[in-house]
Amino acid sequence: MVEAFDVVDIIRSKRDRAALSTEQIDWLIDAYTREYVDDAQMSALIMAIFLNGMERREIFDMTQAMIHSGERMDFSSLSKPTVDKHSTGGVGDKITLPLMPLVACFGVAVPQLSGRGLGHTGGTLDKLESIPGWRAELSNEQILQQLEGLGGVICAAGKGLAPADKRLYALRDITGTVEAIPLIASSIMSKKIAEGTSALVLDVKFGSGAFMREEERARELARTMVALGTDAGVETSALLTSMETPLGLTIGNANEVRESVEVLAGGGPADVVELTVALAREMLASVGQPDADVEAALQDGRAMDTWRQFVEAQGGDPDAALPTPNETHTVVAEQDGVLVRQDALPFGVAAWRLGAGRARASDEVVHAAGIDLHAKPGDEVRAGQPLFTLAANDAARFERALDAVEGAYEIAPAGTSFDRQPIVRDRISS
Amino acid sequence: MVEAFDVVDIIRSKRDRAALSTEQIDWLIDAYTREYVDDAQMSALIMAIFLNGMERREIFDMTQAMIHSGERMDFSSLSKPTVDKHSTGGVGDKITLPLMPLVACFGVAVPQLSGRGLGHTGGTLDKLESIPGWRAELSNEQILQQLEGLGGVICAAGKGLAPADKRLYALRDITGTVEAIPLIASSIMSKKIAEGTSALVLDVKFGSGAFMREEERARELARTMVALGTDAGVETSALLTSMETPLGLTIGNANEVRESVEVLAGGGPADVVELTVALAREMLASVGQPDADVEAALQDGRAMDTWRQFVEAQGGDPDAALPTPNETHTVVAEQDGVLVRQDALPFGVAAWRLGAGRARASDEVVHAAGIDLHAKPGDEVRAGQPLFTLAANDAARFERALDAVEGAYEIAPAGTSFDRQPIVRDRISS
Repeated sequence: MVEAFDVVDIIRSKRDRAALSTEQIDWLIDAYTREYVDDAQMSALIMAIFLNGMERREIFDMTQAMIHSGERMDFSSLSKPTVDKHSTGGVGDKITLPLMPLVACFGVAVPQLSGRGLGHTGGTLDKLESIPGWRAELSNEQILQQLEGLGGVICAAGKGLAPADKRLYALRDITGTVEAIPLIASSIMSKKIAEGTSALVLDVKFGSGAFMREEERARELARTMVALGTDAGVETSALLTSMETPLGLTIGNANEVRESVEVLAGGGPADVVELTVALAREMLASVGQPDADVEAALQDGRAMDTWRQFVEAQGGDPDAALPTPNETHTVVAEQDGVLVRQDALPFGVAAWRLGAGRARASDEVVHAAGIDLHAKPGDEVRAGQPLFTLAANDAARFERALDAVEGAYEIAPAGTSFDRQPIVRDRISS
Repeated sequence: MVEAFDVVDIIRSKRDRAALSTEQIDWLIDAYTREYVDDAQMSALIMAIFLNGMERREIFDMTQAMIHSGERMDFSSLSKPTVDKHSTGGVGDKITLPLMPLVACFGVAVPQLSGRGLGHTGGTLDKLESIPGWRAELSNEQILQQLEGLGGVICAAGKGLAPADKRLYALRDITGTVEAIPLIASSIMSKKIAEGTSALVLDVKFGSGAFMREEERARELARTMVALGTDAGVETSALLTSMETPLGLTIGNANEVRESVEVLAGGGPADVVELTVALAREMLASVGQPDADVEAALQDGRAMDTWRQFVEAQGGDPDAALPTPNETHTVVAEQDGVLVRQDALPFGVAAWRLGAGRARASDEVVHAAGIDLHAKPGDEVRAGQPLFTLAANDAARFERALDAVEGAYEIAPAGTSFDRQPIVRDRISS
């Protein structure tokens, strides 16, 4: 076939700060999918995009081209509106687990096509696989049936959705270009738009445990994604949320499921409840239920009922015992005072080193491994009081996990004032 | 083995405008040679280098690391000083052919380890291979023997010299990063320093037919390379020369050999003679012969004698007929006037399309193909007078060659004044 463009010309254009045309972008993603454009050429281009940026129109075109590289799903046959949530990822982020049933119990379809974890941020599917029997793989018919019935699904995204994005993501990971806003935005949004949801709420995190460290970069990413969703006809909004400190009191897999069930039972840590409720309100408002009383649904068992149906529908036993670790190691406070700092990233890295995460896509996750926190920033502590407990199947893992959290938390003298900040810092809509 | 660095950290550092350490650069080039760092990672890094630059110390380290990736040659056993020349390449640039014998006949060793052409700039070895029997491949012993004897060699660079550079160059070619000054400079200089010459003269070209279009970029490249050579203990200087118009009256292979022989016989076009003489003076001055009468050596046959010995030493017959084309096509002036413009790049592209160059490294060159120019900028022409002749083995090639030169030359009304500029515009030394 005669190629419509020369990839070297396209790379040079972006290198020299020009905007790529719609036709160039369509050709590029198609040629990359066909493997006519190779990884070396694509990685030079994405570094140029990282450094020179893309206009809103280019990012929209990139997203559309990635959608067209694969299959699309179609939820239009459902009798209810669909609303999806996406989080940019953080430490202890188990929010999808209580959130999906909480929103679904209001008669809304919540398709959560999720991934597995890589690096220090956990994967929703890894967490749920702690539940004996629960399975992540569903056919498209099962997804539609479950959305029409109990209203929610959390499952693996099909390989056919935006395949060009999958290769690009792997390439960004090894070439130091993960944080390029046009690429993050088109990667996330191509999957969400291809998935066919009618509304979408984004949880865009910033801080030590997020992959956007700075609030302003996270805000730019949120604005870019909201614009992309809006341009594609998806009702899209975003919450800008803090990820300086781990979310909740658990980091791992089985322990995060336990904490999620506590929230569904009307309890759980205040920050997890705050974020779950805020996202549920935003999602329900986006499909015409701005006044839904989501707190009541947590207190009266409706959300829990939907959770139990969901676990059973995907082969799991909601009453089964979750895996427990062979070994634990508890770290105590060395002095009286106030815990004023607990950095998300090092605690995420420590949980990963304990076996809760994977270094390579082919690694197995240890479901019982992770960290339970016994105090959160702002809490008063006494010397000898447990601060956190490491859990692993092999005690040899503790040393490197302790190295990771060295200096990652701080106890200030008793009486030091501490200003608790809300998790949700801003809301961005079109 | 435990790796000393993480390539993603190195890419991120350069992406964020940091300078890489000597240790990082050494590791990087070694790891790339070992194929631990892959092409996709290297191309992201070279795009970051293209856009964010490198300091003088980093470029020096890069050059040294590339030298250490392979073999070095050693000319210290020779009884004469060695001086090499490198041209950044242009259209009709056959200067190495008359220059090597001209300098060698003054008792100096001139090792010209050359390459083949790719794209619109020709390769010195391709030109010489027009001579029946002449061969480019010599062993290291043959190179030393010939340098000690007749004083000069033009041959293929051994594969062992700076192998990391060879892979990097191929990668730059497909990723739109050829023009990055730190990479051009370290690529050229790593080979020249590894080759072991004691002095080096650079012909750094700018203009339409050079790969640096702008004089200021060429000047920066020249300064960078002179600094690199000086830092490595090689007596290095550069001439900054114009490449707006093809050099001489021939573009191709066999026809460029013919023109070179004319220069060696004391004739030839003024611009080719000017540049050959200027480079010969610079080279001889760099090895202690600032007063050598190079013009006399062209007129009295000394340079020609060395040329004939050189051709014979490498298996060729200096009296053999050179290949002639099956087909020619002459373009004439449409009006009386003064030829005021003749752009190098389109004429180079046309010669390439006629078969004189190759699109892929595996293509064969047609030695008889190319272009003979009958007028140069500043010449008066009359309507119907031949301007240039295309030569190919297949007349079907003429159409695309004529497309390439469309609009590439201009005849102004008779009497228009034309300011002939010298080829050599500046000299740069440390």
